[in-house]
Amino acid sequence: MTAYLDHAATTSILPAAARVLTEHLASVGNPSSLHTSGRSARRTVEEARERLAAALGARPSEVIWTSGGTEADNLAVKGMFWARRTQDPQRRRLLVSAVEHHAVLDPAFWMTEHAGAELVLLPVDRDGVLDLDALAAELAAHGPRAALISVMWANNEVGAVQPLAEVVALARRYGVPVHADAVQAVGQVPVDFAASGLDALTLSGHKVGGPGGTGALLARRDLDLTPILHGGGQERGVRSGTLDAALLASFAVAADEAVGARPTSAPRLAALRDRLVAGVLELAPDAVLRGPADPARRLPANAHLTFPGCEGDSLLYLLDSAGVEASTGSACQAGVPRPSHVLLAMGVPEADARGALRFSLGHTSTVADVDALLTVLPAVLDRARAAGLAAGPGTPATAPRPDVASGVL
Amino acid sequence: MTAYLDHAATTSILPAAARVLTEHLASVGNPSSLHTSGRSARRTVEEARERLAAALGARPSEVIWTSGGTEADNLAVKGMFWARRTQDPQRRRLLVSAVEHHAVLDPAFWMTEHAGAELVLLPVDRDGVLDLDALAAELAAHGPRAALISVMWANNEVGAVQPLAEVVALARRYGVPVHADAVQAVGQVPVDFAASGLDALTLSGHKVGGPGGTGALLARRDLDLTPILHGGGQERGVRSGTLDAALLASFAVAADEAVGARPTSAPRLAALRDRLVAGVLELAPDAVLRGPADPARRLPANAHLTFPGCEGDSLLYLLDSAGVEASTGSACQAGVPRPSHVLLAMGVPEADARGALRFSLGHTSTVADVDALLTVLPAVLDRARAAGLAAGPGTPATAPRPDVASGVL
Repeated sequence: MTAYLDHAATTSILPAAARVLTEHLASVGNPSSLHTSGRSARRTVEEARERLAAALGARPSEVIWTSGGTEADNLAVKGMFWARRTQDPQRRRLLVSAVEHHAVLDPAFWMTEHAGAELVLLPVDRDGVLDLDALAAELAAHGPRAALISVMWANNEVGAVQPLAEVVALARRYGVPVHADAVQAVGQVPVDFAASGLDALTLSGHKVGGPGGTGALLARRDLDLTPILHGGGQERGVRSGTLDAALLASFAVAADEAVGARPTSAPRLAALRDRLVAGVLELAPDAVLRGPADPARRLPANAHLTFPGCEGDSLLYLLDSAGVEASTGSACQAGVPRPSHVLLAMGVPEADARGALRFSLGHTSTVADVDALLTVLPAVLDRARAAGLAAGPGTPATAPRPDVASGVL
Repeated sequence: MTAYLDHAATTSILPAAARVLTEHLASVGNPSSLHTSGRSARRTVEEARERLAAALGARPSEVIWTSGGTEADNLAVKGMFWARRTQDPQRRRLLVSAVEHHAVLDPAFWMTEHAGAELVLLPVDRDGVLDLDALAAELAAHGPRAALISVMWANNEVGAVQPLAEVVALARRYGVPVHADAVQAVGQVPVDFAASGLDALTLSGHKVGGPGGTGALLARRDLDLTPILHGGGQERGVRSGTLDAALLASFAVAADEAVGARPTSAPRLAALRDRLVAGVLELAPDAVLRGPADPARRLPANAHLTFPGCEGDSLLYLLDSAGVEASTGSACQAGVPRPSHVLLAMGVPEADARGALRFSLGHTSTVADVDALLTVLPAVLDRARAAGLAAGPGTPATAPRPDVASGVL
């Protein structure tokens, strides 16, 4: 019996979402076709759009379907920058937090090389929370030259919830649109697009119990976006590509269920998380919980810890052998033998950052999963520490700047 | 009972593909995760990659998964152009046939506005087949300035199979990489990536009986491609975004089955197509079959006809009311009240082009589907002609250039 503690990488599909997907699989019809089958597929897509929008405080017309969170982040960063710079060529500064997912950071870096963007990496504090003073100072000095701000709703590694209301308030003074990657936040903390004041927000299907290959960018109708996928002109010309009714219906059901369940699931997961953290710290008193200590300022399903003298990868493999699945950080960067750019941006020394493990909970998580971890952890830590000692002390930090090089397979 | 004669817009999922998708739905695991669940998902993805590659004469390492044909076309056109221009700044000419799908044409147009591309629309003959002399002349005059050539394997509207071997031979003399959109060709005509000599080739899942939201670009390993989606670095850094094992396994099964069935399905569909065309021409002797008359030079499942004095949209709706589903052209452009850029490029007068109907067959098509069309067609044509007479003669052509404006929802 495996204890899956990696729901932030991907979670299993919700039964209702699987049912809807399977039901729609047999239907044929391209939502762009004008005949009865096409119009039926179109109706399914539009009902999904309404359902997703309603779950997140958005209007149906604000939903732009994408193939996932990565595409939505790329559309937001590139699309907003290109459009903004076309309107006002002096707006070239691209402000992103230093702890963004690579799906925001890498497009931002690319825009410096290919579109004349001036990248500003906004610093975070030791908990991984955006430094609002630094943002205020940047805007005071260069506000009229800012093209956009992208700050995630909650961090995917350490679970820090970001002060988006303050970011939006600051940005408004300078007329700067704000995007937030809310891939990890939906279903864990309240996410209301209209109330947030955001201009654009990224969603992912498979992170909320929907199918892979689905996502969306919520975008205000008055936000100009240059497309990144051109073609048939679907999604009001902003995102071309044939829409799949079955996938989108399933995604919408999952998002709706995840959001609807939050009032009960979030406290349940927070209690499990607290049990996990307390248990780990009792077994490994030198371990350090990363991210905000205040439970109100971190995602309920996230527990991120560093274990001195251990390599995160060793811990991951030893735990896996013992039937417990976790991550050293973002799955998208797993396999890269480098400390996380998020931890480095938080000022965690590289040697400590190498001993990182992220445990993330989800709809299938139980007390038994947490206890399975706590049962095997002592032996795992003994072996990992022995391996760490044999390998010598960790490499000292050489690069103070977050590591944001392009990832690997 | 509906007769679905619009398989080129989308076809129903093959039973084996639906079964594989459903089976994998219950599995959790991000293919980028390092634990057992992640490695299992990765194994599924890699087996799908091998299966897809084998079906199309490619190596597994040449498969780049995408969200569909549109994304693959965008990656090919933009990615090849950006990379080629970076290597050699004078290579700015972007050669595409005038009858490409909008997923090729629109990225090409966008690159003229945003990346300094000089677009060359290669002409076609009256059958919709590329004018090789025009390509040869263009390359003789400007070969060292050509960045890439994109010519589809077979046209999605009139079914014309393009002379790709000759295109590749010409392009090689000038060191110009060639991309082909093979979305409509796979499963209908033999498609072998290695034998083709192409540098890149676009595939779509839902056109071959796989799920929506899937596609791939086959690309030679020595072809430089600038990514259009940046992030986690999946797919050797060329296409970031979480891969979905269930969708990709299903897509690979569908492609494999469609290709494997071709030796029997293609002649079966060609016979149905011949029955359809002969029947229509008997009922409407003034109708004109568009595309090559030689069956060897057109897709077996495609029949495209124009009906003088009729509006294609009227025909479409009247047929739909009578239980027969067809298209006026590309589903991706359906709803646009303009004649097809493909027909205009073939020299069809605008008035004639407005009376276009595309019938396309697929794995569920039967003699009964064709006969359903032939049964209702006379009354439909009577009503459409009456409507056409009431509305007056068609608007004369005002724009000799293919209409390639951005599409609509």
